Order: sequence, then C-alpha cells, then structure tokens
Amino acid sequence: MFISIDGGDGTGKSLQISLLKKYFEKQQKEVILCREPGSTRLGEAIRNILLNENGTKISVKSEMFLFMAARAQLVEEIIRPALQKNQIVLCDRFLLSTLVYQGIAVQDSMEEIWKIGEIAVDTVWPNLMILLDVDPTIALQRIKRPLDRMESKGIDFHQRVRAGFLKAADKWNQIFPNRCIVVDSSGTPEQVSQTIQNIVDQILFIKY
Amino acid sequence: MFISIDGGDGTGKSLQISLLKKYFEKQQKEVILCREPGSTRLGEAIRNILLNENGTKISVKSEMFLFMAARAQLVEEIIRPALQKNQIVLCDRFLLSTLVYQGIAVQDSMEEIWKIGEIAVDTVWPNLMILLDVDPTIALQRIKRPLDRMESKGIDFHQRVRAGFLKAADKWNQIFPNRCIVVDSSGTPEQVSQTIQNIVDQILFIKY
Repeated sequence: MFISIDGGDGTGKSLQISLLKKYFEKQQKEVILCREPGSTRLGEAIRNILLNENGTKISVKSEMFLFMAARAQLVEEIIRPALQKNQIVLCDRFLLSTLVYQGIAVQDSMEEIWKIGEIAVDTVWPNLMILLDVDPTIALQRIKRPLDRMESKGIDFHQRVRAGFLKAADKWNQIFPNRCIVVDSSGTPEQVSQTIQNIVDQILFIKY
Repeated sequence: MFISIDGGDGTGKSLQISLLKKYFEKQQKEVILCREPGSTRLGEAIRNILLNENGTKISVKSEMFLFMAARAQLVEEIIRPALQKNQIVLCDRFLLSTLVYQGIAVQDSMEEIWKIGEIAVDTVWPNLMILLDVDPTIALQRIKRPLDRMESKGIDFHQRVRAGFLKAADKWNQIFPNRCIVVDSSGTPEQVSQTIQNIVDQILFIKY
C-alpha cells in the first residue's frame, strides 16, 4: 500500500502524515515514511542542491529533472522493496507536486512532466493520493516560522499552485479513477485526520 | 555552430577538442568550450554527485536524470546564449554519451532516453557530432594515469560501449542525416585532427 500526501505549503502535510502513521501503527501495521526529494542519500544530496543556498542558477527544466532523479532513486531503493515486504509507504509529496510546481504553476502545462514521470515511477504508482486543499491565505498563516524561498513567493503564486493542484488531481483521476482524493484541510488537524482515516478505511481497503 | 565530440574513454576527445579550438581561433573565431556534466555551477555540483566518492547508491535511471538536469542547464545557461552571439560551441560529450552509457550499454535500449533527451535539449541540437572510434584495447592503453571507476570496468564493457556508440550514431543519422560523423581515431593526434578539420571545412561550412 503506497499513499502520498500532497498539497501547497501550510496545508498540513507533515502533520497529517504523522497522524496517519499512528493510525496504521495502532493496527499493528508496518509503516515507512518518506519525503520528496530525500529519504535516500542521493535524494538528500539533491535536496541540498535544490535548497540552493549558494545561489546556483537552476532552470525550471533542470529542477524538474533533479526531482525525477531523486524520485527514481526513492522508488528503487525504498518504495518498491517496502511494498514487496507488505509495508505501508507514506510519502510526503510525490509526482503531483512536480506536475504543479515545475509544470502548471510556471508554464501552464504538465504533459511533458507526466511523460517523464511515468519513466521515473516505473509502474510504482501510489494506490492513493491525498490532496490537502485549503485557501492559501489560511494555509500560510499556519506557518509559525520565517517563510522559506518557496513559501514567501506571494499570494498570487500560491493561488496558482492551489488551482494547479486541483487541475493535476483531475488529470490523475482521468488516468487512475478515484485514486486522488481532495480533502478540505481548513478544519482542525483532528477533523482532517478523521476524514483521511475514513477515506483510507472506506475507499482503499474495500477497493484493493 | 554547435559541435560535440563523443566517444569511449581514451579515444582522445579532450585533446581533439583543444586542437579544434586552436584551429577555429586561428581563423579569428570565438570559441566556447564546455563539458558534460559540468561547465555550469549546477553541472559541476551534479558531476560531484556522479563521481560518487562517498559511495552514494545511484540507480541507472537516476544517473540518466542527473545527466539530463546538467544538460538542460548547460543548454539554457551557456550553449543557447553563445549560439545567439554567433560563437562556436565545442562540447566534450553530449546526448550521444547518455544514449550509450545509461542506455544501450546497460539495458540495450535508448528509446526512453531519446524522448527525455529531446525535452532536455529543447531544440538546441548539435550541428555536427564527431564520434571518435577506436578499438578499446588501444584506447585504454593511451590513458597514462590510474583508471577511474568507469575506465576500469573491463574490456567487455568497453567493447559494448564502442558498439553502442556506433549504434547510437546510426540512430542519430536516421533522424538528423549526416550530422554524426564517425572518425577513426587510431592514428596520431595530428592525423585525427586533420580528419576532423576536413570534416568541419568540407561538410559543415558547405552545409550550413
């Protein structure tokens, strides 16, 4: 079982992943957490490049290829082996984020990225993707530390990202029906977590 | 004018590029040298990852994406602007090497890499590619220092690489007729350089 949680900054991804992990562990299930880009040594090296602390120029296309390099490694080194051992994999962001941040939000297109993503993922598609959706004005207020480079890009950008995620989710569901569920994350963490647990219980375990 | 020189280890790429640079400079032409992966800050950071000195696991697919990330940056940051200024760009390796090292030589296929390469290159194709070809037993004897990780992979691997380059050159010429010229590099550096100069003079400047 491979579940990813995506969404804009401040939508509560990390918190919801940790709550979902606890929920599975109460049921004695083995859970592997991972994040993109990262979780492998190569992924963390790529994350360091992308954090871009020394101001290295990185074109949007190069950024996209770096995410794909990290993703291909994550799939081969961690996700595929975990699934073969019947572990549950929870991933903080996956291909959906690349479709949005390097695709729709900057060039209004995701076709190329989808094609390349298919090669990177190599048939290891999430069984379920949760898209956390909330108005960015609410989401950004939730971040209680100084905003990073992406987070401080202005409300227009974040509105574009939100719309992009909803569009990418639509495309995803055209290809994999009902595999990408949009969850309203304007409620309390407990409310959102309950909604996610219901989805996991009702949709996922009935379906697979 | 964008010319790349490709070929296996020890075929004399770097030397031939520097001789070709001198040849152009004698004609008062402005020449930009670049190498893959590298030549940009991002490319050099990626080269460091690929040198793999701390033993980071890198899957073939991730390796391919890293080369593409470096390539896309090289095209945007250096090659395209240089061509717009009518400079001559000489590149030590280009897409042909990825087709071989991450494609034919390891998985007997280059179709996926070609598709991804088209996206990375983004219409900035070399006007001419020179493939230096020589029996690997001769090529490897030419290297007068300890062999690196790739170079020390054994003669079978290098024979596969040589055959791969010839196959990739064929494919290239099917798509871009006569743009990839195989040059026998078993002769002296001066002989090989003379052959390359003849090609550049007779084929390239007549054609474009």
